[in-house]
Amino acid sequence: MNDDALKYAERLVPRSYIDLARQARRSYEQQIRQIIEHRKLPEQPLEEHIIEQWINEMAQMDSNNFEGNVGVGEREGRIYSSLVARRHSLLSHGIGRSGDINAVQPKAAGSSLLNKLTNELVLDAIHALGLRTITHAVVIPMATGMTMTLCLLTFKKQRPQSRYVLWSRIDQKSCFKSILTANLEPIVIEQIENNNYLQTDVDEFEKQIQKFNPHEICCIISTTSCFAPRAIDNVQQISNLCQTYSIPHLINNAYGLQSTKIIHEIEQAKRSNGRIDYIVQSTDKNFLVPVGGSIVLTYDAKLFDALSHAYPGRASITPTTDMFITLLSMGKKGLLDLVQKRKNLFNLFYEKLIQWAKDNDEYILSSKQFSPISIAISLKHLPNERVTELGSMLFTRRISGARVIKLGTKQTIDTYEFMNYGAHSSNIQCSYLTVAASIGMEESDTDIFMKKFDSIYQKLQRNENSDD
Amino acid sequence: MNDDALKYAERLVPRSYIDLARQARRSYEQQIRQIIEHRKLPEQPLEEHIIEQWINEMAQMDSNNFEGNVGVGEREGRIYSSLVARRHSLLSHGIGRSGDINAVQPKAAGSSLLNKLTNELVLDAIHALGLRTITHAVVIPMATGMTMTLCLLTFKKQRPQSRYVLWSRIDQKSCFKSILTANLEPIVIEQIENNNYLQTDVDEFEKQIQKFNPHEICCIISTTSCFAPRAIDNVQQISNLCQTYSIPHLINNAYGLQSTKIIHEIEQAKRSNGRIDYIVQSTDKNFLVPVGGSIVLTYDAKLFDALSHAYPGRASITPTTDMFITLLSMGKKGLLDLVQKRKNLFNLFYEKLIQWAKDNDEYILSSKQFSPISIAISLKHLPNERVTELGSMLFTRRISGARVIKLGTKQTIDTYEFMNYGAHSSNIQCSYLTVAASIGMEESDTDIFMKKFDSIYQKLQRNENSDD
Amino acid sequence: MNDDALKYAERLVPRSYIDLARQARRSYEQQIRQIIEHRKLPEQPLEEHIIEQWINEMAQMDSNNFEGNVGVGEREGRIYSSLVARRHSLLSHGIGRSGDINAVQPKAAGSSLLNKLTNELVLDAIHALGLRTITHAVVIPMATGMTMTLCLLTFKKQRPQSRYVLWSRIDQKSCFKSILTANLEPIVIEQIENNNYLQTDVDEFEKQIQKFNPHEICCIISTTSCFAPRAIDNVQQISNLCQTYSIPHLINNAYGLQSTKIIHEIEQAKRSNGRIDYIVQSTDKNFLVPVGGSIVLTYDAKLFDALSHAYPGRASITPTTDMFITLLSMGKKGLLDLVQKRKNLFNLFYEKLIQWAKDNDEYILSSKQFSPISIAISLKHLPNERVTELGSMLFTRRISGARVIKLGTKQTIDTYEFMNYGAHSSNIQCSYLTVAASIGMEESDTDIFMKKFDSIYQKLQRNENSDD
Amino acid sequence: MNDDALKYAERLVPRSYIDLARQARRSYEQQIRQIIEHRKLPEQPLEEHIIEQWINEMAQMDSNNFEGNVGVGEREGRIYSSLVARRHSLLSHGIGRSGDINAVQPKAAGSSLLNKLTNELVLDAIHALGLRTITHAVVIPMATGMTMTLCLLTFKKQRPQSRYVLWSRIDQKSCFKSILTANLEPIVIEQIENNNYLQTDVDEFEKQIQKFNPHEICCIISTTSCFAPRAIDNVQQISNLCQTYSIPHLINNAYGLQSTKIIHEIEQAKRSNGRIDYIVQSTDKNFLVPVGGSIVLTYDAKLFDALSHAYPGRASITPTTDMFITLLSMGKKGLLDLVQKRKNLFNLFYEKLIQWAKDNDEYILSSKQFSPISIAISLKHLPNERVTELGSMLFTRRISGARVIKLGTKQTIDTYEFMNYGAHSSNIQCSYLTVAASIGMEESDTDIFMKKFDSIYQKLQRNENSDD
Repeated sequence: MNDDALKYAERLVPRSYIDLARQARRSYEQQIRQIIEHRKLPEQPLEEHIIEQWINEMAQMDSNNFEGNVGVGEREGRIYSSLVARRHSLLSHGIGRSGDINAVQPKAAGSSLLNKLTNELVLDAIHALGLRTITHAVVIPMATGMTMTLCLLTFKKQRPQSRYVLWSRIDQKSCFKSILTANLEPIVIEQIENNNYLQTDVDEFEKQIQKFNPHEICCIISTTSCFAPRAIDNVQQISNLCQTYSIPHLINNAYGLQSTKIIHEIEQAKRSNGRIDYIVQSTDKNFLVPVGGSIVLTYDAKLFDALSHAYPGRASITPTTDMFITLLSMGKKGLLDLVQKRKNLFNLFYEKLIQWAKDNDEYILSSKQFSPISIAISLKHLPNERVTELGSMLFTRRISGARVIKLGTKQTIDTYEFMNYGAHSSNIQCSYLTVAASIGMEESDTDIFMKKFDSIYQKLQRNENSDD
Repeated sequence: MNDDALKYAERLVPRSYIDLARQARRSYEQQIRQIIEHRKLPEQPLEEHIIEQWINEMAQMDSNNFEGNVGVGEREGRIYSSLVARRHSLLSHGIGRSGDINAVQPKAAGSSLLNKLTNELVLDAIHALGLRTITHAVVIPMATGMTMTLCLLTFKKQRPQSRYVLWSRIDQKSCFKSILTANLEPIVIEQIENNNYLQTDVDEFEKQIQKFNPHEICCIISTTSCFAPRAIDNVQQISNLCQTYSIPHLINNAYGLQSTKIIHEIEQAKRSNGRIDYIVQSTDKNFLVPVGGSIVLTYDAKLFDALSHAYPGRASITPTTDMFITLLSMGKKGLLDLVQKRKNLFNLFYEKLIQWAKDNDEYILSSKQFSPISIAISLKHLPNERVTELGSMLFTRRISGARVIKLGTKQTIDTYEFMNYGAHSSNIQCSYLTVAASIGMEESDTDIFMKKFDSIYQKLQRNENSDD
Repeated sequence: MNDDALKYAERLVPRSYIDLARQARRSYEQQIRQIIEHRKLPEQPLEEHIIEQWINEMAQMDSNNFEGNVGVGEREGRIYSSLVARRHSLLSHGIGRSGDINAVQPKAAGSSLLNKLTNELVLDAIHALGLRTITHAVVIPMATGMTMTLCLLTFKKQRPQSRYVLWSRIDQKSCFKSILTANLEPIVIEQIENNNYLQTDVDEFEKQIQKFNPHEICCIISTTSCFAPRAIDNVQQISNLCQTYSIPHLINNAYGLQSTKIIHEIEQAKRSNGRIDYIVQSTDKNFLVPVGGSIVLTYDAKLFDALSHAYPGRASITPTTDMFITLLSMGKKGLLDLVQKRKNLFNLFYEKLIQWAKDNDEYILSSKQFSPISIAISLKHLPNERVTELGSMLFTRRISGARVIKLGTKQTIDTYEFMNYGAHSSNIQCSYLTVAASIGMEESDTDIFMKKFDSIYQKLQRNENSDD
Repeated sequence: MNDDALKYAERLVPRSYIDLARQARRSYEQQIRQIIEHRKLPEQPLEEHIIEQWINEMAQMDSNNFEGNVGVGEREGRIYSSLVARRHSLLSHGIGRSGDINAVQPKAAGSSLLNKLTNELVLDAIHALGLRTITHAVVIPMATGMTMTLCLLTFKKQRPQSRYVLWSRIDQKSCFKSILTANLEPIVIEQIENNNYLQTDVDEFEKQIQKFNPHEICCIISTTSCFAPRAIDNVQQISNLCQTYSIPHLINNAYGLQSTKIIHEIEQAKRSNGRIDYIVQSTDKNFLVPVGGSIVLTYDAKLFDALSHAYPGRASITPTTDMFITLLSMGKKGLLDLVQKRKNLFNLFYEKLIQWAKDNDEYILSSKQFSPISIAISLKHLPNERVTELGSMLFTRRISGARVIKLGTKQTIDTYEFMNYGAHSSNIQCSYLTVAASIGMEESDTDIFMKKFDSIYQKLQRNENSDD
């Protein structure tokens, strides 16, 4: 209803009542106007119905939703199923154009606006989280692994002579496979042990750089968020090496945005003039949306353009829409509260596990400081042949996400062989379990976990039958 | 997004694309403006997403959806469940105020607008259907039976000395019970048989009027839509009697809006200066919405006000919203097409049944002219003790709505006894089956019915076991 | 997916994963089974998606949603608009049959089940709230006013000689109009003042009973929940009178279920052998659903049947579905928590207002004990001609529900005249404001109210211009 | 509700009614069971509410929706916004595992089932469309361009020595860019003109193969669906070359599934023992879903595995869910009807344009046989400087998808230069317009197009001002 319509509505409902409604409407409209004008996350959450209506309005700006539109092309945004149409709020054209994932579409002004604006709001959220000097953020509708491949392909195009990727070992397949998919050759830099946790072998990095011609190195990949006992990579020193040797630096920050410690490390690396090209993170792990998107951050317009241009063709707008809804539903305050709550929960969980370890003569294998999300706890008193049962017993009791690492697991990926796969290191001392305090977790979750874990542990230790 | 917001959007998406979207938006806005301005159904359907968005906009005009609204009353439109909130598009305040079901609510400008506007659109639809001189239409959120009770109570208030309701027998309980619920006394006027169908006994009506003092008669109820072999009541002659003797006339037009014949009869009665006070019809049976509402029509502002004022307190807005959505989804054209399609289907169904009757030595008991929706077919060759099986066998084969009337059924309602209940007449000759060609039916439905009906009939006639 | 389907699913997904899903599914199914078996509210909330799926399953039990169903009747549950169909979860047949609002429909097993079960869950909720001896509860899809009319019509049918309703004055139009709509004659019993609040004039009740023949009195209406300074009616003594003189007793308990005090009073009345026939309450005001339904409670199967049978025809299932969703979304615990929270909030709000009154030389006009929801505060220092401005200024500042009562307001309803209408009494001493601490309110609401109210009060007291 | 629950429901609703509902329920369940058992598209559409409920059931098989699930991992499928959760039907885990896009997830049995089953249904749909010997189909949640890059990377991994891609020129950027993104070198094979349309220069292909060592050629890309006047590539001869020289063959079949002619060509190529490795097509262009997915087809399990393994990490399930819903909403019959309808519409559109061309002394530039979707029409009588106006005038009149190709347009992509870009050929003779008869189009669309196009053409030809 536009102003004229409301004018005529006054013939049906007294003007004074309509006036009040006008004011209420105006306050919503101003919030929306301000968000478009300043491209900043609002401090407070927007109500769901306002967000939904706004998306609907943008959808109506796309030509497939124009009244009387006639499509004589090969891609007209037609949707067969009304159920599918509703799931997508009638947004059908996706994002990007053939040349550029960030380009606007003439046929789809609404989708284009939604996409552009969301990237700006993501940037503002990133600033709020503490990466204050990032200049470009973009939601890519592919999960982190494939997005890292895209980053690697972009580097490779600019460094056609390069072949190798120096990679600080992290036992998560999709990171490693992103190198192989890009048809590059990983050089594995093993972690070194430091007082119960694993840390980046910076010297070995430098040795390898010197061994190869730096021009043959396509880039270095460091990883921040990871399972304990592996620590955050030493991002500062790696980025200094990258700066010194002019090698691109890709940070695999999969779920690192939820940790103030990790963000601090990246921010420090940048401030100390280290080189960071792209930082890739998951939308689902950091912002509690369904799997399907990632965010790439850069400090440099050219790098941003290079990546945008690298993407061939169109792409789904769904991960973008999910981020748009979620960020506005949180507001800046909601987002920061979530991060703070997670930090508190990590400390609490850590204390509970330390206490449990003391009580059971086990120990924590990870650094509280350098592993700010995941915690590893030894299982030295469990018979090694029954260690894997622990994981499955937890799972059937509806504890998901606990990972058991058993001494001596081997894994081959492509032609690469890893010893003690899962432990990020060939030389671990005993089997262990990892758990994480990740964003969105509740305190009651830790209570239930502790109770069920302890009960299964005691049972297995007594070598009892695992049946309930 | 208001104009300012779109202005700022031009910084993110080129102005020319936004301009196109503006135009598209404007054409929707103008449609809505025109509907509010002229209060006429649009010729063509509105798209569902436009209707939904419009309702959302109206919901935002209600105080429970104002940003920062603080409620310190006892009824603030709060909704506990978000699922419930969504089902109602956040409309929570209902319609009416304590004094009047048609009054606007200061707290709920949006609901009030939706209500007022819907009643106007219903009026326009009624005009389009052929009742061109109706001046007031109102959706009442109660089904026809209870709404008829409300009409009767309204008459009674104005005629405190009256006690009786003259009622042309129609064997549908809710119509009869609406009289009893109003604590009035029905005088049953039996139908008379006329060449295989039943028609109004107008003479008996006049006799009864003369027997009682007209002031003691609260009103006369005539019924249009009904199961064959009963015909449409002779609305013209009844309304002439009402005029002559100054007795209110209530037409039970439950599903009569879908029949051009019925509408024509009412229109003629009015044109020949007959008296018609209220015409009551179902929303679900005529407009394909869920059960829950009815429409009252009048030719007179005072009668309309009397009814509005009679309703004590608030009421649900749901039936109104359903009508709003449905009428706009149909457009005037869609509504008239549905009615025309039903008429054609009735003729087709009638022909099929006549042919079947010939083939099986049965006959049609109803007048094609005076029973324009329902058709009755004799079952004289079925063993009378197996007649009821026919109904249940049809039902378990997913034919719903076919009714079998068995000779000799008695029914007592309150203290009133009816012979051959269901047949509208104490003297029917044989058992029979009724079917209807009602709005929304498809031709394929008649095919499937004919096939299944014939197969069961043959089976029962052969006195076979009814099991499949 | 039935068990067979899951069996075949094991060819696509490993059995062990399917097994886990089976277990999870089973725990939901058992919850649902238990609810149907025991007809008790679950202690804990059910998740929204489980409730929604359950409703969908019930909808599929209605014939309009059967695959291949062919309808040849006049009411086949067809829905034209898919938007309307979704709003109603495809439930189209409503509740009740011609004879009885509580009867099951052969065509609609799912709707019938939903209706029956909801009434049982409502009964359990009522027991949990403290009315432990109630034996029947029914959701009526009409708001309280019209439902009270229905109760009155039911009484009248059983007492055809009766004409009068003794009514303890409550200045809420729909209660009074419910008597007029039933074509009965109200006898107004004025409140008496007792130390700043208004209480039932029990002696006058007895005097009036004796004045008329008790057989001429159709029933007595007492009201519990109301705006201060009127107190809860003395339900105990009234119900004793009703018992003594064999007069039906209808309690207008509109929003009384949210108050433990009110519930206690009713429970005490019943325990002391008082007579209570029907207790009517709003669904929206007590359970935070949209306007449109009410709940009738009785202690007697015959009374329950009488009411069920009185309702002519079908009715909307929407208020029932809303209650079903809401009660399961709350769980018993959630419901009781809400009630407790409201009680605490009332005390808090009361304290704030007392303090404010002290600071401003005003006073509280209501009894904390006998007016457990609404609070009245004097406005003696405001110029009387500006008192009404207070209300509208609050409203334009998004405070809804505060009511200003100005000395000397007259109101005529039908032929009845009321002095100081709104104040429930002809002899109030000064203008005042009422606010309520009703269910669903938040503490922050009281803060915002106090701030805005104080600011406007000071402004008006200084006789300043009301413009912002 | 399981069987036990229904048993208890019989205490609330008569058993015979419940029985009918049971049967109806069973017929839905059997449909679903059959789909899972046989993994074939049903002949007839499934109703939307059945599909929706089925998806909800599968979602409940994922651990994030288990009652009482406790997540202690880093990715637990939590969803912050309930609006986002609803859009995704609570499906949060996506598809694939780190190693394989087609792998099942222990945490997400439901998502895994949905994914596996959809791919099987897509395969069945592909068979029904005529590609009867395809053995594997997979929905990839990336649009065609990026998916082609993934195919190219997969080839490259297997042919590490290769560098070149032989590419039959098609002026659609994302196809060309997919080669560049994979860091391969395109060898452009220009089209040759044949009597007004453009066809594959097969000889030049062979010449280029011989010029390079076949081992240096990573693959050949042929394109089927394209804008006229370019014809379908000569898939048969290209696949024979690929067979002869052992070069992988990737078919860019973006919107070719909607054309029986194109499908026939591919099928013939395969039957004549040509080599085809992957066929890539868009989900949105062929199946009327929103942009975001593609389908890869192969005839070989190893190739399928290679691609599955190439994808690093997880991915969105949204395009898969959209396909699941859409295919079931269509049924096999609905899909084939759509394809047939499109074919008829193409013929009709072609006739209209031929007639128009005759009337205006213009001509059709494309082969009706070899360009079965797109049609090109000359604009020789328009002033060349005003040709582009035609496109924008059509667009502002809500004709989308018509493309104007102006003589002499140059385009540089990366370092590659194209003359007459858009025309697929450096030597076109005059400017022209292309339109398409694509799936989902209506006959009325062609009428509106013809009218608006003619009116603008006449205006521009008279060299009038383009303003309305």
